[in-house]
Amino acid sequence: MRRPVCVLGWGLIGGSLARAVSAADRPVWGATSSTADARSARDAGYDVTTSTAEAVARAAEEDALVVLAVPLPAVEPVLREIAAVAPRCRLTDVVSVKEPVADAVRRLLPSARYVGGHPMAGSAASGWAASDGDLFRDAAWVVTAEVTEDEEDGATSSTDADLWAEVARLALACGAHVVPATPAEHDAAVARVSHLPHVLAAVLAAVGADGGPLALALGAGSFRDGTRVMGTRPELVRAMCEGNRPALLDAVDDALGRLGAARGALASTGSLAATVTTGHEARLSFEHLLAGRPGARVRVDPADLPRLVELGRRGGRVIGLNHDEAVVELPG
Amino acid sequence: MRRPVCVLGWGLIGGSLARAVSAADRPVWGATSSTADARSARDAGYDVTTSTAEAVARAAEEDALVVLAVPLPAVEPVLREIAAVAPRCRLTDVVSVKEPVADAVRRLLPSARYVGGHPMAGSAASGWAASDGDLFRDAAWVVTAEVTEDEEDGATSSTDADLWAEVARLALACGAHVVPATPAEHDAAVARVSHLPHVLAAVLAAVGADGGPLALALGAGSFRDGTRVMGTRPELVRAMCEGNRPALLDAVDDALGRLGAARGALASTGSLAATVTTGHEARLSFEHLLAGRPGARVRVDPADLPRLVELGRRGGRVIGLNHDEAVVELPG
Repeated sequence: MRRPVCVLGWGLIGGSLARAVSAADRPVWGATSSTADARSARDAGYDVTTSTAEAVARAAEEDALVVLAVPLPAVEPVLREIAAVAPRCRLTDVVSVKEPVADAVRRLLPSARYVGGHPMAGSAASGWAASDGDLFRDAAWVVTAEVTEDEEDGATSSTDADLWAEVARLALACGAHVVPATPAEHDAAVARVSHLPHVLAAVLAAVGADGGPLALALGAGSFRDGTRVMGTRPELVRAMCEGNRPALLDAVDDALGRLGAARGALASTGSLAATVTTGHEARLSFEHLLAGRPGARVRVDPADLPRLVELGRRGGRVIGLNHDEAVVELPG
Repeated sequence: MRRPVCVLGWGLIGGSLARAVSAADRPVWGATSSTADARSARDAGYDVTTSTAEAVARAAEEDALVVLAVPLPAVEPVLREIAAVAPRCRLTDVVSVKEPVADAVRRLLPSARYVGGHPMAGSAASGWAASDGDLFRDAAWVVTAEVTEDEEDGATSSTDADLWAEVARLALACGAHVVPATPAEHDAAVARVSHLPHVLAAVLAAVGADGGPLALALGAGSFRDGTRVMGTRPELVRAMCEGNRPALLDAVDDALGRLGAARGALASTGSLAATVTTGHEARLSFEHLLAGRPGARVRVDPADLPRLVELGRRGGRVIGLNHDEAVVELPG
């Protein structure tokens, strides 16, 4: 598969993707609205313009795979630019929420072939300068499929299975493993493990600073780790969290409930047993999921997207893919 | 100052302290109730018994500085053992809360000379096997002084200034810097920057696990960092957090207030601007405090404990100490 890749947005994620794709010997070019990022990427030998229209017209000519790598607030304007030049393009994205992007594509680019994606990798730094061709190595990369449950037909998917496989191979080529999920399940999951951590880090940093210079001077490992992601530029954190509002509200409500329960138990009985034990077991489950692989491997038809999504729900990940089969590793 | 050091408790903190003291060429011995830790420490060449009474009797004979390095729940029983053998010993501790320990010393060992301490260093691992003579290098080590404010006399301290300086020198010898604080101010500060991070990590880990294997499989940097301290043994986390109940309740209430405000803003306006901006600025203040040194240096009378505590309140730390002066570095 030597289809060229057209990257729109050359910040941390788009830039890292371009580096990884290029390292895998696949043609890559693109556009960014940041003249600074464009200049630096060109200095590094990449073919980058500041004109989205120009890059997308070339994508239409060469039948490239277009990768949308802009922050959520920029998605709609960029989709409008694509619609004007390449309404039937092959499109994926690496934006941190999936339902809002899928909705926008349906509205603004209804004739495109689209499969959503989200690599679970990042850093507190941003921009092309922070890009790294190894950023996605061993990371999870969600590739979404719409699945409808029906009593008569069972689970079916309206997603283009060929494009799904192509996007999954792009993720594998970047060194990631592929987690199949519906957009809604993706958004609910990342609200818990990616967006809530940012909100809690903001709360923790503020409560620490409220303790004055003495408290901050005593901040050690637990405070440093617990607030680290607050070093990220606020507009990026906001775009990510605010873009996943309904799912994040659910996760924040769960956190408020658990924190309130901890408060109640500490005040009334002096014990944090339930809170700490549950948290410890959850952390061990997470460590086990990370370290406990490989578990069982199953081979499935790569066009059977409902089956792939079901395995993703169980913690499975695709580690290999060809025309006949997808190799899925389940947790050990 | 070659006074021997008698360490009671040879886990992560006590063991690391013994290693650091020994590396500084000072005699060190002690006792632990863990036969496994005692055996391993003896194998490493240390003089460790499983009899507290025996070690403390020797401390009385040699006029050693006794360092209490046991978890909070073991403090009272060990103080009773000391009281039976060495009621007038010189005593410090490295326990994570200071008012409860000071109260217990006043009740159970009223004739001892006591100055509390708390090195702000640790790891998710525990026991002698995890001990490290460099654990305290560049860490903050709180050494407490009681300070009373009086309209007529101003601020005065009832703490033994000679022993304060001796404990501060022990911390400096271990590679730490010394933060002077009252027990109450210490407990309020660590509730915010050490105990609250553990409670929030427990909440985050649980909310993540509630999302099932898919959510945990998508956990990346923010979730890993935000839950890291939940890898610690639950009984250690509980002892630390539950031992600081009143101050921790205040910190949890502040966190509930801020998390509730974030929830309200997200639900009503869709914006997390206030939460994220405040969190980002707080994190930058913390990073500045860590990295922005050295700021101004002031030299003060080491016997002027109220002045030292006042400088600690402003984020100051003692980096050098002799009979004439304490060198205090203020934030840049």
